[in-house]
Amino acid sequence: MHEPQTNYEIRLHYKLSVQLKQEKFEHDTFQLPNVANNMMDMDQDPRKRLCFADGRRKVDYVLVYHYRKRSSVRGSPSQHRLSIISNGSYPLGVEEKDQEGGKDEPAEVVVDVGPPDPADGEKIMIREEFEGNLKDAGLEIEHDKENKAHGHAFIRLHAPWQVLSREAEFLKIKVPTKKSYELREEKGLAATMNEAWRKLNQPFQPKVPHQEQEHSRTKFLSHCFSRDKLHLQSSQSLFPGILRCPLFCLTGITTLIANGVYDSAFPLHDGDFHPSGQAEGKNDRQLLHDEWARYGAFYKYQPVDLIRKYFGEKIGLYFAWLGVYTQLLIPASVVGIIVFFYGWATVETNIPSQEMCDEDQNFTMCPLCDRACDYWHLSTACGTARASHLFDNPATVFFAIFMSLWAAMFLEHWKRRQISLNYSWDLTGMEEEEEHPRPKYETILLQKRQRKKKNKKNKNEVVTLNVFLPSQTGHEKLTWRDRLPGYLINISSILFMFGMTCSAVFSVIIYRITISALMAMSPDPEVKSNVRVTVTATAVIINLVVILILDEIYGMVAAWLTELEIPKTETNFEERLILKAFLLKFMNAYAPIFYVAFFKGRFAGRPGDYVYVFNDYRMEECAPGGCLIELCIQLSIIMLGKQLIQNNIFEIGIPKLKKLCRTLKDKERAPKEIVEQPGRRQQWHLDYDLEPFDGLTPEYMEMIIQFGFVSLFVASFPLAPLFALLNNVIEIRLDAKKFVTELRRPDAIRAKDIGIWYNILSGLGKFSVIINAFVISFTSDFIPRLVYQYMYSETGTMHGFINHTLSYFNVSNFKPGTVPSISSLGKDITFCRYKDYREPPWSTEPYQFSKQYWSVLAARLGFVILFQNLVITMSMLVAWVIPDVPKNISEQLKKEKTLLVDVFLNEEKEKLQLIQSLFSRDLTQEQQEELKVSDQTSLSSSQTAQYNHRDRFTWICSVCLKDC
Amino acid sequence: MHEPQTNYEIRLHYKLSVQLKQEKFEHDTFQLPNVANNMMDMDQDPRKRLCFADGRRKVDYVLVYHYRKRSSVRGSPSQHRLSIISNGSYPLGVEEKDQEGGKDEPAEVVVDVGPPDPADGEKIMIREEFEGNLKDAGLEIEHDKENKAHGHAFIRLHAPWQVLSREAEFLKIKVPTKKSYELREEKGLAATMNEAWRKLNQPFQPKVPHQEQEHSRTKFLSHCFSRDKLHLQSSQSLFPGILRCPLFCLTGITTLIANGVYDSAFPLHDGDFHPSGQAEGKNDRQLLHDEWARYGAFYKYQPVDLIRKYFGEKIGLYFAWLGVYTQLLIPASVVGIIVFFYGWATVETNIPSQEMCDEDQNFTMCPLCDRACDYWHLSTACGTARASHLFDNPATVFFAIFMSLWAAMFLEHWKRRQISLNYSWDLTGMEEEEEHPRPKYETILLQKRQRKKKNKKNKNEVVTLNVFLPSQTGHEKLTWRDRLPGYLINISSILFMFGMTCSAVFSVIIYRITISALMAMSPDPEVKSNVRVTVTATAVIINLVVILILDEIYGMVAAWLTELEIPKTETNFEERLILKAFLLKFMNAYAPIFYVAFFKGRFAGRPGDYVYVFNDYRMEECAPGGCLIELCIQLSIIMLGKQLIQNNIFEIGIPKLKKLCRTLKDKERAPKEIVEQPGRRQQWHLDYDLEPFDGLTPEYMEMIIQFGFVSLFVASFPLAPLFALLNNVIEIRLDAKKFVTELRRPDAIRAKDIGIWYNILSGLGKFSVIINAFVISFTSDFIPRLVYQYMYSETGTMHGFINHTLSYFNVSNFKPGTVPSISSLGKDITFCRYKDYREPPWSTEPYQFSKQYWSVLAARLGFVILFQNLVITMSMLVAWVIPDVPKNISEQLKKEKTLLVDVFLNEEKEKLQLIQSLFSRDLTQEQQEELKVSDQTSLSSSQTAQYNHRDRFTWICSVCLKDC
Repeated sequence: MHEPQTNYEIRLHYKLSVQLKQEKFEHDTFQLPNVANNMMDMDQDPRKRLCFADGRRKVDYVLVYHYRKRSSVRGSPSQHRLSIISNGSYPLGVEEKDQEGGKDEPAEVVVDVGPPDPADGEKIMIREEFEGNLKDAGLEIEHDKENKAHGHAFIRLHAPWQVLSREAEFLKIKVPTKKSYELREEKGLAATMNEAWRKLNQPFQPKVPHQEQEHSRTKFLSHCFSRDKLHLQSSQSLFPGILRCPLFCLTGITTLIANGVYDSAFPLHDGDFHPSGQAEGKNDRQLLHDEWARYGAFYKYQPVDLIRKYFGEKIGLYFAWLGVYTQLLIPASVVGIIVFFYGWATVETNIPSQEMCDEDQNFTMCPLCDRACDYWHLSTACGTARASHLFDNPATVFFAIFMSLWAAMFLEHWKRRQISLNYSWDLTGMEEEEEHPRPKYETILLQKRQRKKKNKKNKNEVVTLNVFLPSQTGHEKLTWRDRLPGYLINISSILFMFGMTCSAVFSVIIYRITISALMAMSPDPEVKSNVRVTVTATAVIINLVVILILDEIYGMVAAWLTELEIPKTETNFEERLILKAFLLKFMNAYAPIFYVAFFKGRFAGRPGDYVYVFNDYRMEECAPGGCLIELCIQLSIIMLGKQLIQNNIFEIGIPKLKKLCRTLKDKERAPKEIVEQPGRRQQWHLDYDLEPFDGLTPEYMEMIIQFGFVSLFVASFPLAPLFALLNNVIEIRLDAKKFVTELRRPDAIRAKDIGIWYNILSGLGKFSVIINAFVISFTSDFIPRLVYQYMYSETGTMHGFINHTLSYFNVSNFKPGTVPSISSLGKDITFCRYKDYREPPWSTEPYQFSKQYWSVLAARLGFVILFQNLVITMSMLVAWVIPDVPKNISEQLKKEKTLLVDVFLNEEKEKLQLIQSLFSRDLTQEQQEELKVSDQTSLSSSQTAQYNHRDRFTWICSVCLKDC
Repeated sequence: MHEPQTNYEIRLHYKLSVQLKQEKFEHDTFQLPNVANNMMDMDQDPRKRLCFADGRRKVDYVLVYHYRKRSSVRGSPSQHRLSIISNGSYPLGVEEKDQEGGKDEPAEVVVDVGPPDPADGEKIMIREEFEGNLKDAGLEIEHDKENKAHGHAFIRLHAPWQVLSREAEFLKIKVPTKKSYELREEKGLAATMNEAWRKLNQPFQPKVPHQEQEHSRTKFLSHCFSRDKLHLQSSQSLFPGILRCPLFCLTGITTLIANGVYDSAFPLHDGDFHPSGQAEGKNDRQLLHDEWARYGAFYKYQPVDLIRKYFGEKIGLYFAWLGVYTQLLIPASVVGIIVFFYGWATVETNIPSQEMCDEDQNFTMCPLCDRACDYWHLSTACGTARASHLFDNPATVFFAIFMSLWAAMFLEHWKRRQISLNYSWDLTGMEEEEEHPRPKYETILLQKRQRKKKNKKNKNEVVTLNVFLPSQTGHEKLTWRDRLPGYLINISSILFMFGMTCSAVFSVIIYRITISALMAMSPDPEVKSNVRVTVTATAVIINLVVILILDEIYGMVAAWLTELEIPKTETNFEERLILKAFLLKFMNAYAPIFYVAFFKGRFAGRPGDYVYVFNDYRMEECAPGGCLIELCIQLSIIMLGKQLIQNNIFEIGIPKLKKLCRTLKDKERAPKEIVEQPGRRQQWHLDYDLEPFDGLTPEYMEMIIQFGFVSLFVASFPLAPLFALLNNVIEIRLDAKKFVTELRRPDAIRAKDIGIWYNILSGLGKFSVIINAFVISFTSDFIPRLVYQYMYSETGTMHGFINHTLSYFNVSNFKPGTVPSISSLGKDITFCRYKDYREPPWSTEPYQFSKQYWSVLAARLGFVILFQNLVITMSMLVAWVIPDVPKNISEQLKKEKTLLVDVFLNEEKEKLQLIQSLFSRDLTQEQQEELKVSDQTSLSSSQTAQYNHRDRFTWICSVCLKDC
């Protein structure tokens, strides 16, 4: 009687199981064009090189260790034992194995830190245990067959579909379903514009399959992957590469690598790439190489989706961010160029620089150094005055405001882009996973526990047993007391580094002062005339070298300091490291620039009362054209120099050198094997030869420091965006080349955003407003000019401005010994001029700051307040006006939500109807009667009537078959 | 052969269904102590008054309409027809009704806006249709039995458990599961401290059941409600009241009320309350009344959980916010009082005020008005100088910084509290629901559509059919073009209001100037001596009255303007309304204060060159003690006056008046019925007599404006937090009384946060920094004192400060006609003094701003920059240091996540084992064989071996019984 039902169920299950197996099959056999042809020669199909020996299962991950063949090492394995227990975020298998114990502790890795390099035997033991765990988790493992005396052993892992799908379920990875929907077609003008824009953009799009999908109107609904809903999910894209990492990394491999049990662990590249790019049926790596990782493609958009598919979300986001940044640098550079040309065009009509160059207005200036220097005419500084105008003109103020808004816009734009990417990469609902603690943290924790244990043992022998209970130890954690020494060292080191940077800057200043003094005293007139150029040039180069060296040192110091803090997780570690490294490197890169912008020439004193360092050398003053031009030179040289040198030497040269070293070392170690089997090198051998990937931090850091150059002092150097743009166009392809050809494939890490970098960017943006306000009002002559024109000028024009800015000095007031010794002009001079607002010698308070000084100062400060508040308000307005979620995305999200509910409801309804008809056919009258009676006994009220028969069925079915 | 399986299934279903029905039963029979006793007299059990006529089903919601008995009104119902289609966010029932059509359109309500007041017959039709829809959705409806000629008809709705559970599933409402876990016990000092704190706090805790749970160590896991997982869910708390609203509101009831089809719609109160509070077995309303809504409980914490349970999350959050704000006002008030007393204690030793009061230093001041006023001695202003010192002393600067940090801390604290509440109210995963559009929006959209239709008809008769297709019209929306007129009116109106506020302020200034001039000219010496007091007092009172009147007007104008913008949803409407109302009311309340702080006395000119308005009246100057004291008076009067008047008149008086009106009107309309049946009044009659709830906006607005008083000008009035605190302690209980006793029960609205109010608060906090910076540096004498002490004072003390701030004026330079006409001092005076930094008459530039002026100005501006950046940096640091998510919450969240996975995994595993044993017993060898063969045919590879038998079962079972 019940046969139809059971048969139906079996049929249903069978149907679904076939479908499921089909998908499993597709993954596990690595989708060869024709499966029957699997007896092909291995060497002929390059893709076979990525597979297990059966040529069928794909190698998803590779573990490498170094071995020496010795059979007698199995020493006391029970004593030094490193046991890894999964951190419980997923079970080791669906087996009945009881995992209660393992799960109560959030993360428990017991690492015995006995001897620093445990004997090989122990390592073998640990490896066996680890690999056993991996097998328990459902992974398939292939070992090397070769038996050499020593060398690298490769353990290849394959994750069968079953394991992947389990992981996908746990990670709530979203996959597209079969249900698609049409996007609303735009009509009229908007559609035409859109189409035109698409066509115009066509040549800039990389030629990558599926990239076109982005523009199609049909979207597929996506939903968290569930093995129960396989029939709903589209089979076209199983899981993107993103599953590779969390599966393996989290099980403690980092600890093992840190302890030297394994040498390295990495996923395999998608195969080889041909530099010429003619291969047919390109793999993803080849595609990336051809369409992305070459300089010829510099004008194209990046194939971000493919990058994400190949390298994971985190790296995908980096390149997407870099792309957005570079793109937005284009308008900034254009405006910068316009501003620069505005300055260039108006230099002839600019009255102050005209006045400075005018030889009729013969301002006799006070000497620039004691005794050795002569009085001089201001018109000799004509060149710098004109150059100064290029960067110090009213357009600069506009440009500074523009760039502050640009920075706000950039951040908003990136937020939107990030949300778009999150949406198109199906990360919208991603939750943060609990992370495995870092090996270092675990070690320290263990040490602490052991110390405690020992203490307790000493005190009382009885309690020892309790200490070993996991429920006790599981709650233990490092408190601030354990970290206190680390924090103290941190603070003092950072202060020390700060002092170091300052003293570096100061020594360069001393260098400049002494050299220029010495050169000025030289009898050779040619030396004398080149003082300023020589000194400035050499000083900046020294600065640059110091910055580059300290940069490397600070990077290492930051890492060391962060280790001392013992952060618990890798994310935590990264964040702290980034903050510290940023702080140090920022300080390092900007200290000399800050000095020039805000301090240089402000403590030089005045004629007759100069400030001396070491009792002998006068503090340096700015060039007669103002400090802005010096700031500009400093900025451009440091920015360009840093970028060129870092790009060429640090990013290209050093890796090549490292690789050379490694190859040499390897050759030395095992020269025979490699020479013997050149033809049989598998993909894992090739990949192992590449450089390991060591995080995105240096890449981001470089860009953020550059962003600082672009935003912080932009008021003094409008061409900064242009240089940044040129650099970035190269940088993108350089990084791309590195990732595709020179690095092992990185673990794919899921990420929703660029993390702390966004905060740093936004902080820099805010900081740039106040810095620019100060640069405009204090470094440039913008405010004094305005004040002169509107307060002091009798004609309302700029005529007489130069005269107004120069104070008088009575040469008889020179201190003895500071008067120019040999002077061509000195004989008939009673007054010399200097640039400052001070009372003339004949006033009641000679050489005191004049009323002009205070009014200009008030105007400067007022401008800072105005500028800062205005620009911050405008930036906030920009951020408020631009919605964080692009409109089309929010519309699509809403639509998808509705549709998804529909899909599941429809599905449920269909099943319900099916089952219902089945049930009503099957259930005997007797049973129905029975159920009814039981209902009435339990509810015994008149209300029961409404929970009628159909209703109960509905409920029963929904209980059993919901989500099936 | 298959009987065991089927039997097992039936048993399983039966077991679960009994459980389910039990829960249904508990809800639907409204948990009476003994169910058998249901023949009790209705009047004896007050809770029966909340039920349907059967005394069993609880009334969840009430719809009211006004009717007149006329049987002939059924006019042409097909023409004017208002049909409501559910907005598709949930189905109208699990019935087989095809809902495809309704769901494709996101939200579609067709409202025919024919005549403004459709005939009664149409209303009856609409009501029938609407009630039919409600019934289709599973609701149970009871109508009034009474048949009177006309009056109010009450439709009572009951939502059976089935409907509630369906809604709960769709809304993903979290409910506690049976699984509980222990929180980590703190040990040692922390635990002792905690315990002591708890005990100390005990008298402040309201006596509400379950409130103690908050402190217990046992927490229950919560999970999204699912009918499939009933056995996991704890039955102790079904759904809190939160389901009442979304169920009914969303189905378009607002549209119907707006169209007059229904009079009102509200959920019922929990029963009556006894003012004395002696009732046994208190209902929630009584509890709230006793423990919350009375002044005697002013020192207690609020029972926030109970408030939320009774009124919903949105109102719960308001009171929680108000509580946090009031609590944090305590430290602010304490510091404010200390600062005030510091001023009071140091007034005797304060050199500037001593100097002002010193009659030996006889500064002869220039007259305060033309002709009528005489020269005067500064020592006569001794009183104000001393009063001024109370508020203008160095502690004020500290207090301003403190209050800025306090504001940042308050915001951070609230964020944490909000997250805690979200967590304990199980809102963490709440998603925003798509909202029903507002009636107004729909009307305008329909009009637009009709207009379009007409246009198209005129052009081409053929396309008409397409226009009616829902897929076409569903995508239509209002573009900026439709809204343009609204926006234009908005902008111009806001500008107009702005002008109005300014002119109000200006007229008060004119009033002050003219009255004081007139009074000064009065011959009566008593009038003359009271000029300042009289004028200031009357002017402030006029200001206050103007503010209060404009406040009401602006509230209405803001609502009107927002209607013009045609926002789509209610949330949208609310946000825009709030922003506009805030802008207008803020401007209104603060304009006079801004005037006093920053403009008064700054445009008065100097002796001999005064500024005149209307050619006749001199601009007013600040009192001799400085503007700060005036600012302080202005601030305190407006703040106190506004609060007192608003609390007493607007919040108590006007509602009472309104109620009186309504009662009178009702009596007039139907005097008989009410008198007739005084004993039979049901809860819905009682509730209908209460005032309808009209949103939280006025409550929030009042508090935010108060927050402005507390933060914006706190530098000038350190007692503001104290007054705010006193007001709020009363305000909380006042509001509570209103909600519990005077208002109909509001719809429970789910909300995660306080919405746009948070942004306004944070904006005010930022704005307050700059305002305080300006108040300290420009309104107070803090900076001039500092500058004098460190730049000009010869002794380094404050001696001689008063002399330094007063400039000289040669009385011979008075313009003709402005010299004092009658003067007791005037004969032997050549110089009079005035408060300003100007050159003396004997300098080369007489009466120009002196060097001191510019240096003080520079110092003032510098202080603003310093203060602003310092305080903003510190606030950011505070916000950064205080984590948004409290640590214990984030720990609990992590723990819960892990535990939840465990619970479900365990459950699944148990079922799996059960079913597995079942299957392996049942399935014949034959069938197994069959399955195996099919496997092999489909996979035909050696890999299949590993997908062994057990594996398949695992999968099949998981497919079928997962989540059961």
